Amino acid sequence: MAGSSKKPDAKINRSWGGRFSRAPSEKTQAFTASIGFDLRLLPYDVRAGIAHARMLAAQRIIRAADRDKIVRGLRAIEKEYQAGKFQPKVGDEDVHMAVERRLMEKAGSAGARLHTARSRNDQVVTDVRLYMKDAIGAVDAAIEHLQNVLTGISRAHVDAVLPGYTHMQRAQPILLGHHLLAYYDMLDRDRQRLSDAFARVDVLPLGAGALAGTTLPIDPKRVAKELGFARIAANSIDAVSDRDFILEYLAALAILFAHLSRLAGEITVWASSEFGFVGLDDAYSTGSSMMPQKKNPDVAELVRGKSGRVFGNLMAVLTVVKGLPLAYNSDLQEDKQALFDSTDTALSSVEQLSGLLESLTFRTDRMQEAAGEDLMLATDLAEYLVARSIPFRSAHEIVGRLVAHVIRTGGKLTELDGKTLRRFSDAFDDDAAAILSTRRAVDRRRSPGGTAGVNLKKRLRRLT
Amino acid sequence: MAGSSKKPDAKINRSWGGRFSRAPSEKTQAFTASIGFDLRLLPYDVRAGIAHARMLAAQRIIRAADRDKIVRGLRAIEKEYQAGKFQPKVGDEDVHMAVERRLMEKAGSAGARLHTARSRNDQVVTDVRLYMKDAIGAVDAAIEHLQNVLTGISRAHVDAVLPGYTHMQRAQPILLGHHLLAYYDMLDRDRQRLSDAFARVDVLPLGAGALAGTTLPIDPKRVAKELGFARIAANSIDAVSDRDFILEYLAALAILFAHLSRLAGEITVWASSEFGFVGLDDAYSTGSSMMPQKKNPDVAELVRGKSGRVFGNLMAVLTVVKGLPLAYNSDLQEDKQALFDSTDTALSSVEQLSGLLESLTFRTDRMQEAAGEDLMLATDLAEYLVARSIPFRSAHEIVGRLVAHVIRTGGKLTELDGKTLRRFSDAFDDDAAAILSTRRAVDRRRSPGGTAGVNLKKRLRRLT
Amino acid sequence: MAGSSKKPDAKINRSWGGRFSRAPSEKTQAFTASIGFDLRLLPYDVRAGIAHARMLAAQRIIRAADRDKIVRGLRAIEKEYQAGKFQPKVGDEDVHMAVERRLMEKAGSAGARLHTARSRNDQVVTDVRLYMKDAIGAVDAAIEHLQNVLTGISRAHVDAVLPGYTHMQRAQPILLGHHLLAYYDMLDRDRQRLSDAFARVDVLPLGAGALAGTTLPIDPKRVAKELGFARIAANSIDAVSDRDFILEYLAALAILFAHLSRLAGEITVWASSEFGFVGLDDAYSTGSSMMPQKKNPDVAELVRGKSGRVFGNLMAVLTVVKGLPLAYNSDLQEDKQALFDSTDTALSSVEQLSGLLESLTFRTDRMQEAAGEDLMLATDLAEYLVARSIPFRSAHEIVGRLVAHVIRTGGKLTELDGKTLRRFSDAFDDDAAAILSTRRAVDRRRSPGGTAGVNLKKRLRRLT
Amino acid sequence: MAGSSKKPDAKINRSWGGRFSRAPSEKTQAFTASIGFDLRLLPYDVRAGIAHARMLAAQRIIRAADRDKIVRGLRAIEKEYQAGKFQPKVGDEDVHMAVERRLMEKAGSAGARLHTARSRNDQVVTDVRLYMKDAIGAVDAAIEHLQNVLTGISRAHVDAVLPGYTHMQRAQPILLGHHLLAYYDMLDRDRQRLSDAFARVDVLPLGAGALAGTTLPIDPKRVAKELGFARIAANSIDAVSDRDFILEYLAALAILFAHLSRLAGEITVWASSEFGFVGLDDAYSTGSSMMPQKKNPDVAELVRGKSGRVFGNLMAVLTVVKGLPLAYNSDLQEDKQALFDSTDTALSSVEQLSGLLESLTFRTDRMQEAAGEDLMLATDLAEYLVARSIPFRSAHEIVGRLVAHVIRTGGKLTELDGKTLRRFSDAFDDDAAAILSTRRAVDRRRSPGGTAGVNLKKRLRRLT
Repeated sequence: MAGSSKKPDAKINRSWGGRFSRAPSEKTQAFTASIGFDLRLLPYDVRAGIAHARMLAAQRIIRAADRDKIVRGLRAIEKEYQAGKFQPKVGDEDVHMAVERRLMEKAGSAGARLHTARSRNDQVVTDVRLYMKDAIGAVDAAIEHLQNVLTGISRAHVDAVLPGYTHMQRAQPILLGHHLLAYYDMLDRDRQRLSDAFARVDVLPLGAGALAGTTLPIDPKRVAKELGFARIAANSIDAVSDRDFILEYLAALAILFAHLSRLAGEITVWASSEFGFVGLDDAYSTGSSMMPQKKNPDVAELVRGKSGRVFGNLMAVLTVVKGLPLAYNSDLQEDKQALFDSTDTALSSVEQLSGLLESLTFRTDRMQEAAGEDLMLATDLAEYLVARSIPFRSAHEIVGRLVAHVIRTGGKLTELDGKTLRRFSDAFDDDAAAILSTRRAVDRRRSPGGTAGVNLKKRLRRLT
Repeated sequence: MAGSSKKPDAKINRSWGGRFSRAPSEKTQAFTASIGFDLRLLPYDVRAGIAHARMLAAQRIIRAADRDKIVRGLRAIEKEYQAGKFQPKVGDEDVHMAVERRLMEKAGSAGARLHTARSRNDQVVTDVRLYMKDAIGAVDAAIEHLQNVLTGISRAHVDAVLPGYTHMQRAQPILLGHHLLAYYDMLDRDRQRLSDAFARVDVLPLGAGALAGTTLPIDPKRVAKELGFARIAANSIDAVSDRDFILEYLAALAILFAHLSRLAGEITVWASSEFGFVGLDDAYSTGSSMMPQKKNPDVAELVRGKSGRVFGNLMAVLTVVKGLPLAYNSDLQEDKQALFDSTDTALSSVEQLSGLLESLTFRTDRMQEAAGEDLMLATDLAEYLVARSIPFRSAHEIVGRLVAHVIRTGGKLTELDGKTLRRFSDAFDDDAAAILSTRRAVDRRRSPGGTAGVNLKKRLRRLT
Repeated sequence: MAGSSKKPDAKINRSWGGRFSRAPSEKTQAFTASIGFDLRLLPYDVRAGIAHARMLAAQRIIRAADRDKIVRGLRAIEKEYQAGKFQPKVGDEDVHMAVERRLMEKAGSAGARLHTARSRNDQVVTDVRLYMKDAIGAVDAAIEHLQNVLTGISRAHVDAVLPGYTHMQRAQPILLGHHLLAYYDMLDRDRQRLSDAFARVDVLPLGAGALAGTTLPIDPKRVAKELGFARIAANSIDAVSDRDFILEYLAALAILFAHLSRLAGEITVWASSEFGFVGLDDAYSTGSSMMPQKKNPDVAELVRGKSGRVFGNLMAVLTVVKGLPLAYNSDLQEDKQALFDSTDTALSSVEQLSGLLESLTFRTDRMQEAAGEDLMLATDLAEYLVARSIPFRSAHEIVGRLVAHVIRTGGKLTELDGKTLRRFSDAFDDDAAAILSTRRAVDRRRSPGGTAGVNLKKRLRRLT
Repeated sequence: MAGSSKKPDAKINRSWGGRFSRAPSEKTQAFTASIGFDLRLLPYDVRAGIAHARMLAAQRIIRAADRDKIVRGLRAIEKEYQAGKFQPKVGDEDVHMAVERRLMEKAGSAGARLHTARSRNDQVVTDVRLYMKDAIGAVDAAIEHLQNVLTGISRAHVDAVLPGYTHMQRAQPILLGHHLLAYYDMLDRDRQRLSDAFARVDVLPLGAGALAGTTLPIDPKRVAKELGFARIAANSIDAVSDRDFILEYLAALAILFAHLSRLAGEITVWASSEFGFVGLDDAYSTGSSMMPQKKNPDVAELVRGKSGRVFGNLMAVLTVVKGLPLAYNSDLQEDKQALFDSTDTALSSVEQLSGLLESLTFRTDRMQEAAGEDLMLATDLAEYLVARSIPFRSAHEIVGRLVAHVIRTGGKLTELDGKTLRRFSDAFDDDAAAILSTRRAVDRRRSPGGTAGVNLKKRLRRLT
């Protein structure tokens, strides 16, 4: 056949070697290659290749017989990969070339027709988008499980009271479930963000070619349908050169880790002897190589620490994109490791944090004891005065001085008698202090979103 | 009246001074105060205060007469602010205390009732969310204008051809309009992201109190309705302690600046003598203090450079939130300057970039000339062979060697005769090279999203 | 005189207006101007201007009479500035133009000679470097003071014992002073880094002109000597285009804040009810607008939170510089606000943290009590076995099982009798457990750098 | 022997398993393990282990016979590693446990004595510091080579003139060598920073134990001497808990990449058709999978893009350290991958950039042609007037209008006759314009650091 009569220089086996007289050095090959980390895209490259081949045949750009060889070949390659037998060769620049090279080994000249009307520029973003659709689904499912763990614990300890802290100072008593559902709601927004990002990932770029489209009569909508993409790209240059869909996803994961780092951080604090709110299970803690008595909340610490890499990955890709001219530049190759790393980190961290939470012993007695510090009822006393028409600012001032008095004299707020109280304000009845209690303080916060038991129970029912 | 008979220590005029015996030093006050940068929240604090007072009265927590004094007082305060006459005092910690202090000066003890059933913790996020709803609207409008500038230029030069670049190497000829619409589409996604972020900003946190809700019978839905919030917060702890809605917005702006920095960077390249694709207008450039002949694209450079602060602001707030225990911590005060700075930077940068673009002279002759380099037609020649059944990989290889030949011999691709062509492949007809042309190369890329003129015109019609 | 006979267009009063026919719009002027934030460089601009004028006169590039007018004019301008009377005008782009404009108002055509043989490109880095030399000195002095506060507290509580924590779990008893000196040593390295950065700041770039040097016979060494620079720049392009000296300084401050955030974070933990290791002084804490009993470690929280902006500023300027072509680009104007902000933040944070530490009440009784948990002596028991020839790994294992036994049975490690001990290892003598004590555990760690009292005291003596 | 008679639960083979009743799940083991990435520390772990064992024996903490078994065992382990035969087992948490486990397999109970008087907390930083000393040396050598490449090119093209750009606009003609030496000087400071960082890395932490030192009579100075450390740590808590030496190194590499990204970015611009200042060699460029004519500067683009990960790694570790309490926390385990990745990236990028530069063809004819644009001589004309006593500001203004005239009339600056010149200023002689030339403009910039040929040659001689 015409095209094959002129054999290329054997030394230059790269897809683009035609005009080149000398191949890159091995070190340069290694430097520019991405095969070391993008092989995991192989199943997506195969899926996209099959859909592309079918479209080419349907559009009569290749013959049905070539299509069939390609499809069979690609399926065989994926099987090799799944069996751990796919071996990239030295000189395969990336997963795409590795697949194509192997396809040509299997399907001969039919394989050489697969790259018709596509470029690696649009191919790589197609594969990445397919990967990301799976990744987002997996991260979302992991987060949903973590949410279920949180509601499970909330239900199991629906009456547990602990101090609510602001500035790490005891502020007002709250329900453990109310505290944990704050994380539930953060995670809910994380899932919404992932879902919103998904919509912008769910666009097929194939057909954009190198940057300008193709002269061949392709049908991207057909490919999109087969691959399950909701839309096709409206502009070929945009399709190959932008990475905002990756940035948005990395940002969503960074925000997720802002949340996870807080939850993990609280667990390390709660696991301290001083707080003692949770006990660690052996299965989710490690010991010390030097100190025989130690039991460390490594999993929580690592999750907190891994916020670093997830933030860093976002910063990395923002830096990569900054100031780049259109359209494709090789700088963009630097998007993938950050993408994979943040995804893997999110999956394992969310999973481990779920397991850790499930394994914790919640020491509700210790929580209850801490919640009993009655200075935390000061706001209730102020609101008592407000209900008796004292302006809030004055009520706050009055109770503030009462608190100072209690601290100075070493007594308890709930044990103040009416006479003492009235030295601070005439509005106090004799039983003003006595009717205060931690549990009442919790349950009287019945305002929407407040910590009252009735609110928590209603919320938990709705979250089933 | 009871509450006011016990006057607080004059030295400690802060809202929370009751239990304190000594006021912070002036330097510490300055360090912990945010009044230096949060005064711009005043109009939002007033709006939220009015809605809160009305609700308190409707719920019979305060009297109607007090409500009226509060509303009148707050309106007067906003007028002072708008007239530039509002003066925060030494000792006002933040805009909220400044407003309340001034309200008490105007409305006396009625003013002291405004803070009933709210805490600064929920108040500050209410104000910030109100501000952000306006900010997102303003940024969105600015981006929409920039999009219109891009479509305007595309229409004005609908036939202008320039080289499409990959790796900053000339790749394939494209239409200027097609190139600019790539930015249009990026900006479209930026607007979508802002819109998605808006939905998560549009939640009223007021009623969360310090962290646990309140014992008073408030009606947050009424406040939400008056302030135009779509929903109220489901969990009081989450309401006061999370800042993911700010992070998401800062991330959306960071991605916007990834796009802006690219567009701005391209303008600096295009304005170089070597490219010469655009001419700068005096109104959007500056000169040199030393070199009389210089005309510099400062605006474009500054927009590109300002990506730094917008990325940095995102990193700053991610760092702030990392590892913080629930609920509110003063660290979170560090969210506001980043928020304001990124917003201001986005508004001015988008506006200036729009103006710069409108002022540019597009040198379509220079573009056309650059687009005429006929090696850029190599892909077309390869696709010619594909249409004659040569597998694409072979076609690429053949044309690659043809290109090497042309470079070596110094000729032109479009001037190769049939005999020469057939030394590389039998599939070439005599006119294979001659039928190539830059304009045809553009217009034959009719695939969806491709650069063909017919595509561009259709797209521009739809974007009207 | 010749040059002045042709008056420039009054509308264009900028230094570079000669070839321009139209001035930038007001908004564009505001966008490109830096006068809003660089005015604080005025004293440095004046100093540099005076040194430059003297050199020009010494080299006979300007006349002595002009020099004198310039020097007098510049001194008067600085006085205006120090008195708060210097008013930048609309249209002054930056501090440099503001000074020059004012100089011409004062010194007429002599003023117009000051910009001879310099460009704003080299002028701005000269001013910035002068500023930074002062800034580094000030930050260094503030850190030194913080170190002195740490040694002061260590001396005042030289015998105070508290638990040393790893993973926030009690690990081994240590001395408070030993703990605080860990911060001392971190701060020492911060100061070394600042000192190393100083050496690279201490280079005069003036004379580099716009980028290539000047044709006039200048003498930069003379200027360097007068301004106190150690060296002059070796390459004019490098001199105007690089900002690594700023990046290095911002990185040093970021690392400083990594340290400060840890110290500040520990204070918030120590100030919690659960730890109770420190009591907050009113002067360094704030209250709650809602909860009368609260006393919050705001200063510590803010210092911790401000790590965000300092990290963000570093990221901002790294982003700015990334990928910029040589030589000067306006993007670099974005270096200054980050520089000023990190400097101001460092100065105030270090100062406030010093004050906070000095104001803390160290509750050494609470520390002592916590340190008494005798499981922390497990390592000592293991090392007891090592001294009796048990391999450490076996000793660790044995004591690990002893600890598990003690936890299970609810006893104390120090109360185990010889019989019980020997159920775990024959190597135990009867008094093996009884001789353990917290204080002995501390003092026996006499290895270099260890926590023993003798070490601490020696170290404190050396640090006087 | 006593210690070994009580065998630990076979299921829990970890070094710290004594008090644990249940081992972590496999997934949790994988999550908390670092063996996947820290195995490369093995040679350092061996070296440190040998020095530690020798010291233990010298101090009579272990017997000489045990020392010898340990040393032999460790050496054998390193040989296995170098031969690629060292296999970490499932359950080895990290390289340290893997080495110790293998050592016990080889040396029995002697191996169990190696961990005496050390903890993984001090062990890991010892290994990391040893690694970093090598890494810094390697990066330094790579940069030095890049500097030599730059001076080599400068020498080879010592007379090549090109336009100096500011704002990407042609500014003043400069020498290619002068331009390249700007990078030389940046790299010089990068090396200084690495050297300064080295001094803070060069400290032995071994002996700090878990955090408090040890009760055993160790001699860290002996270990330091054997391992080549300049100093030993002064504070055991600081020794195990701080990572500023890593942060400083990562920051130095980030600044290096700010420089590399600029150089790489300039190469992509210079390699464009429009600039055409350099030609790419096949060995350092890649082609396009779609466009047969393409030759892309991938190496330069990748180096520029890799600034992203290096910036991101710095941000990652800053985030990790932020707010952590003392002493060791598992979060710190997240330091290593960032450290390794930035090191590997720096080594390969500097090496590849050197090779790329060496392979470039410098098209000095294209540079010369571009440098010939005579508007770049405007500053010289202004300085001509200054030499005739025109104040610089007036001279700038005059020449600015001359330039506007030349642009309007389409002439050349160097061809203006005396009559025309004097319409702008009486100070012009007839030959004022005619004596201007590009080469003279270069060579007259003889000021220290200026671009004159005489300066460049002197500098190159000194750099030999």
